[in-house]
Amino acid sequence: MSILVKDVLLGGKRTNILVDGNRIARLDGRPRAEHVIDGRGKAAIPGFVNTHTHAAMTLLRGYADDMALDEWLQRHIWPVEAKMTEKDVYWGTRLACLEMAKSGTTCFNDMYWHVKGAVKAVEDSGLRAQLSSVYIDMFSQGKAALQRAEAERHAKRCNAGSRVTISLGPHAIYTVTEESLRWVKELSDKRGLNVHFHLSETRKEVDDCLRAHGKTPVEYLADIGFLGPRLLCAHAVWLSRREIRLLAQHGAKVSHCPTSNMKLSVGGAMDYVQMRKSGVTVSLGTDGASSNNSLDMFGAMKSAALLHKMAVGDPTVLPAADALRMATLDGACALGIEAGIIQPGALADLTLVNLKRPEMTPLHNLESNLVYSAGGGCVDTVICDGSIVMESGIVEGEEEVIEKAGKAAMRLADKNET
Amino acid sequence: MSILVKDVLLGGKRTNILVDGNRIARLDGRPRAEHVIDGRGKAAIPGFVNTHTHAAMTLLRGYADDMALDEWLQRHIWPVEAKMTEKDVYWGTRLACLEMAKSGTTCFNDMYWHVKGAVKAVEDSGLRAQLSSVYIDMFSQGKAALQRAEAERHAKRCNAGSRVTISLGPHAIYTVTEESLRWVKELSDKRGLNVHFHLSETRKEVDDCLRAHGKTPVEYLADIGFLGPRLLCAHAVWLSRREIRLLAQHGAKVSHCPTSNMKLSVGGAMDYVQMRKSGVTVSLGTDGASSNNSLDMFGAMKSAALLHKMAVGDPTVLPAADALRMATLDGACALGIEAGIIQPGALADLTLVNLKRPEMTPLHNLESNLVYSAGGGCVDTVICDGSIVMESGIVEGEEEVIEKAGKAAMRLADKNET
Repeated sequence: MSILVKDVLLGGKRTNILVDGNRIARLDGRPRAEHVIDGRGKAAIPGFVNTHTHAAMTLLRGYADDMALDEWLQRHIWPVEAKMTEKDVYWGTRLACLEMAKSGTTCFNDMYWHVKGAVKAVEDSGLRAQLSSVYIDMFSQGKAALQRAEAERHAKRCNAGSRVTISLGPHAIYTVTEESLRWVKELSDKRGLNVHFHLSETRKEVDDCLRAHGKTPVEYLADIGFLGPRLLCAHAVWLSRREIRLLAQHGAKVSHCPTSNMKLSVGGAMDYVQMRKSGVTVSLGTDGASSNNSLDMFGAMKSAALLHKMAVGDPTVLPAADALRMATLDGACALGIEAGIIQPGALADLTLVNLKRPEMTPLHNLESNLVYSAGGGCVDTVICDGSIVMESGIVEGEEEVIEKAGKAAMRLADKNET
Repeated sequence: MSILVKDVLLGGKRTNILVDGNRIARLDGRPRAEHVIDGRGKAAIPGFVNTHTHAAMTLLRGYADDMALDEWLQRHIWPVEAKMTEKDVYWGTRLACLEMAKSGTTCFNDMYWHVKGAVKAVEDSGLRAQLSSVYIDMFSQGKAALQRAEAERHAKRCNAGSRVTISLGPHAIYTVTEESLRWVKELSDKRGLNVHFHLSETRKEVDDCLRAHGKTPVEYLADIGFLGPRLLCAHAVWLSRREIRLLAQHGAKVSHCPTSNMKLSVGGAMDYVQMRKSGVTVSLGTDGASSNNSLDMFGAMKSAALLHKMAVGDPTVLPAADALRMATLDGACALGIEAGIIQPGALADLTLVNLKRPEMTPLHNLESNLVYSAGGGCVDTVICDGSIVMESGIVEGEEEVIEKAGKAAMRLADKNET
């Protein structure tokens, strides 16, 4: 199908955007198309790319908050996660996709259980995603064989270039054995699969690694040959400058999750300034809905800008344009997809923002308004992979998703309490 | 007029809320009313009370961001503010009221120039506000007499108990002479007027005060008799424990502005934990739209919860229920109005939140959802002073406000550049 977005604001000028198939075809002239969207009073921006999620955790939104990380995970999150079915993951992921679409996100990078349910949910939602199954083998003998068989089975569904692809999800250095990390890297190289990983979220992880291996997490990963350009590390809060240089040298990417880091009090701010200086690609993630608890990337952009201004003590750090690039182009770069930018040839993943709203008025500076003032409520229309996911604020079938996911969440909570 | 909100969720139960005149009349039975609102699928919460704003600064939203405080104020904000007219302030304040209404705020505490324009704007908007004219006399001889005459003239419009009231707005210790601070306190005592003040926003303010007076700002204010229960101090970031105790002893209130503090990198986090321990009333403010840049109190609640968890390094600090109380009941207490709570006899200032949205699903914990997940887009209906300001997401005349304020802002920017 072809779509024409007519007279929309793009880069400060009124533009016509022609979408043909799943790509942006042209930005000039007055072409014809099968479907025409009136872009007046709207600005076109690339769809957001959320590079760290556990989508189905929407079912646990508000289930356990304001508590210490260990208590939160061990007494609340893990027991209820163990009771989730593939159907729960389907509805939880549908709910996440709905929330993301309504707040202008077109692509996300996920790690969770029952990945088949997530694949089906993303296919049905119209969004783009890279999905990985959580790989943890450290706590039970013989689990590695099962996990590897599962990872290989899913990897066959990879379909590079399609809307829903598969990546590998080794959880973290404290949950995955060295042997399995080496195996993951080998499979990633062989099949061209991205690797989604948690890195140095807490001080404890670094201390434990120093005790176990006599080196910091990134040094350990470098020594076992795990680093590479297909690796995307979520959090990366507790890194030395040497570790940041190592990531840069190997082309490894970072998903910064400012809101989750603050909410769980991981005890510091990621060293954004040094990462930028070293040339590390820093993208943005919300993390799961039980440690944020929102999947709205407008919130993630503002949190990032506020956190680093405060951490460095300098209001010029992480200006609005940087936050917007982290949430779009850097996210696409982190996932290796041709999106995050509106130009001919790029994937047609874009969002139209309603400018006729109080929080978008006046329009002295669109980037500032997007980062510091807007919220998901400003999103009017979302196009992903050349198809309309939301138009004029409405996603088809949204009532059903809200109802079914809400019921699944309540059933799960009941199951956990009995 | 009487309004019945039928079958709405309140404190975990389906309730009928009867509003009669400008008060909440009852929460039980099946009373009749002139206007009935279907509350199914919605939760009723007290309207937010935003205790520190410079409302008309919406006209400068995005005009100057990501720069050092001095450059921001002296090279960008002050020159353009000097060119604002009463009409500009009218439309800027109308825009602020629209943004606040749409995000569930029913009352705000403002300090700005051309207060007559602000009074008219709030009267026309339907919101509740306490408005003060900026009082600065330190930089020009003879200004005190003019400022005092103006403050007394406005104070006559106070109308205690009505929807729009007047308070006194001495700017800060570094802009107002000791003589004028004493005069303000006297007028406040005589007329029962609240005092809206900036206190210890930056380290520099404290250092300068120590140099000039040999004591910290709150010690200085205590010594000149300025502290009292009608004083509301915005920011209060750089206070010693002794200063916090002094505020508590005199019953002075605080408006905490977490987003503004982070965005302008004031260099620290207000000592929330100590303030709570000492019994200081800590309410929440957004600050003006050029240092936030949003007037959405959902964002202020989340920023507060995140900032203090991170500052203390403890995720149990400032839980969701605290943030919600700061934004409602503590705000009303700071301004001395009988609002911030939904109970018979209280002012009918309330907000209905739409629960049928992805970010409000599931409903494990309403308070968590409101603080960590919701945004202004979840607000369905707003009642202020017993009248409907917004119903089903629509504020009457909102297009005109957006258009007129947008034009006023652009005229102002043009004026400043020529």
